[in-house]
Amino acid sequence: MASGASYAASPPPLKNELDIVIPTIRNLDFLEMWRPFFEPYHLIIVQDGDPTKTIKVPPGFDYELYNRNDINKILGPRASCISFKDSACRCFGYMVSKKKYIFTIDDDCFVATEPSGKKINALEQHIKNLLCPSTPYFFNTLYDPFREGADYVRGYPFSLREGAPTAVSHGLWLNIPDYDAPTQLVKPLERNTRYVDAVMTIPKGTLFPMCGMNLAFDRDLIGPAMYFGLMGDGQPIGRYDDMWAGWCCKVICDHLGLGIKTGLPYIYHSKASNPFVNLRKEYKGIFWQEDIIPFFQNAVLPKECTTVQKCYIELSKQVKEKLSKIDPYFDKLADAMVTWIEAWDDLNPTGASKANGKA
Amino acid sequence: MASGASYAASPPPLKNELDIVIPTIRNLDFLEMWRPFFEPYHLIIVQDGDPTKTIKVPPGFDYELYNRNDINKILGPRASCISFKDSACRCFGYMVSKKKYIFTIDDDCFVATEPSGKKINALEQHIKNLLCPSTPYFFNTLYDPFREGADYVRGYPFSLREGAPTAVSHGLWLNIPDYDAPTQLVKPLERNTRYVDAVMTIPKGTLFPMCGMNLAFDRDLIGPAMYFGLMGDGQPIGRYDDMWAGWCCKVICDHLGLGIKTGLPYIYHSKASNPFVNLRKEYKGIFWQEDIIPFFQNAVLPKECTTVQKCYIELSKQVKEKLSKIDPYFDKLADAMVTWIEAWDDLNPTGASKANGKA
Repeated sequence: MASGASYAASPPPLKNELDIVIPTIRNLDFLEMWRPFFEPYHLIIVQDGDPTKTIKVPPGFDYELYNRNDINKILGPRASCISFKDSACRCFGYMVSKKKYIFTIDDDCFVATEPSGKKINALEQHIKNLLCPSTPYFFNTLYDPFREGADYVRGYPFSLREGAPTAVSHGLWLNIPDYDAPTQLVKPLERNTRYVDAVMTIPKGTLFPMCGMNLAFDRDLIGPAMYFGLMGDGQPIGRYDDMWAGWCCKVICDHLGLGIKTGLPYIYHSKASNPFVNLRKEYKGIFWQEDIIPFFQNAVLPKECTTVQKCYIELSKQVKEKLSKIDPYFDKLADAMVTWIEAWDDLNPTGASKANGKA
Repeated sequence: MASGASYAASPPPLKNELDIVIPTIRNLDFLEMWRPFFEPYHLIIVQDGDPTKTIKVPPGFDYELYNRNDINKILGPRASCISFKDSACRCFGYMVSKKKYIFTIDDDCFVATEPSGKKINALEQHIKNLLCPSTPYFFNTLYDPFREGADYVRGYPFSLREGAPTAVSHGLWLNIPDYDAPTQLVKPLERNTRYVDAVMTIPKGTLFPMCGMNLAFDRDLIGPAMYFGLMGDGQPIGRYDDMWAGWCCKVICDHLGLGIKTGLPYIYHSKASNPFVNLRKEYKGIFWQEDIIPFFQNAVLPKECTTVQKCYIELSKQVKEKLSKIDPYFDKLADAMVTWIEAWDDLNPTGASKANGKA
């Protein structure tokens, strides 16, 4: 591996510095399979839907659980920025965490296996990804130069080999691929069986579709931009929560000189969501993204935006100015982006997260 | 795979439309291992070094061979643009070919095997890569959406799913990785054993280090930009021939809306070149690339540049204007770029290549 990253091979487990955030509406039986990997960590469970329902968590896990009543109580009127009846509610967990790192996973995701048959510790791979630099400024053809047995290839400028701090680690899915409703409808039987043994950096200036199913990030570096938007109950759109967060994060990471990696680790995604329901949730997004993508591709943040919060507020202004003409929804979303930052700052006074991470 | 590319699974072999270009100074025994894959194709062998030496080619192969005397005879004074005593001479083969596609390979590259033990037909994979579109405008997290079992993921804008025509297919290397001299010196024993089962598009706006060891391209789309520069005998630099071509090609592909893929196929690279010799060849390049990369990252081609030739001539002007201050070498290189285009156009009157490809 490239020098300066000897910690990558066996990363520190970060037990006191990482929370696992799980949005759910059901009992968390899926945790049994993850027990050897997740039990040492603290879980933040965000209960969606009916708050009177009891969510069972298998014994032995250390967790806190927030239902809608809790969210309303903690955030007051600002709770309006947290989606209801949509897994976008997970971002509340990012906000109440006091740790440096977050790993978030869907409750229909199980432990995948390598081609060798070895069970994949997804969390460990995310930690590796986050603890070594990204390479957003130039493409390395042998993929992540910080992995064992790899390095920068001939022709990679030496001045760029330091890379950039990694803010986001985007993991992938074996079995059910993360397809949109039209593709699900056309290819109901397609399964992802290809294990691609690679981690790579999304280059600067390139957008990507960030999926929230198997995702880790550094709260200190990018947390306030990990807002999953307004989806689900009362909103005209769903299934674009993670996409929205991904577009915002990428633009802000590019501006602040941070990196985003994608590839390993895989999880096993067990159950495809209903494509007809998905189509109803998605269809406006399918139109809107044709305008949203160029908007983000062309978004420029001024130099004065030196923190994630400042970048995010600036983006919210640009959303209001340029996307509201598509639909009044974006006006509401832009306001919610501001509310989200206010709530974030309220729960995370400056430096609190860092101090806690070092405790 | 994404629709519209059903030919990708079993591509036409393109037997009358592809030449294999091999630069060499020795007998081509390495072809024995490639016989089942290469024998149906026409070879263009570019003999480097002493033209009086006889290069033995195993029986059964269909080939034409050019030594330095031939190059001088065919190009006359313009032969000065073709490097001598450096594998950069291979680009002469691109120029004299009349086929639509070129595959070029080094004579120390052997057939690699998949993890399953299956021998890899590198040429077939390059053809697959070239015959289906690239996706330079947005990153697809499941890699090439045109491969079997893959597609565009949720959040990929539908308007971008047509992709872009693929101009270049950049293959990789198992065993000896393509490292620069300093990395070779530091890690003499490092071998690439990781088989990454992926093909991906280098995003628009991102540069990459293109290696000429295992490379295929569409002559009609990008041929005139595949100039490997001035290296070797009489030049202050070596081992930047393919890099130079890659930087020029990437900028021109981005401008003309063409795609470049990297990843599969792998070849088995058997023998590391001498790192001490390499250091001598490379050391100026190691300095210079720190200025060359920003130059190419910021290069803008005007709208009037609608053909590869026009783009390339424009680039040569910008090289002269902006890189000559680094070293007089770039002044000479800029002139050679123009000479190359003149020679190319002389040997390839408009439309000749296309007509031949369809014959």
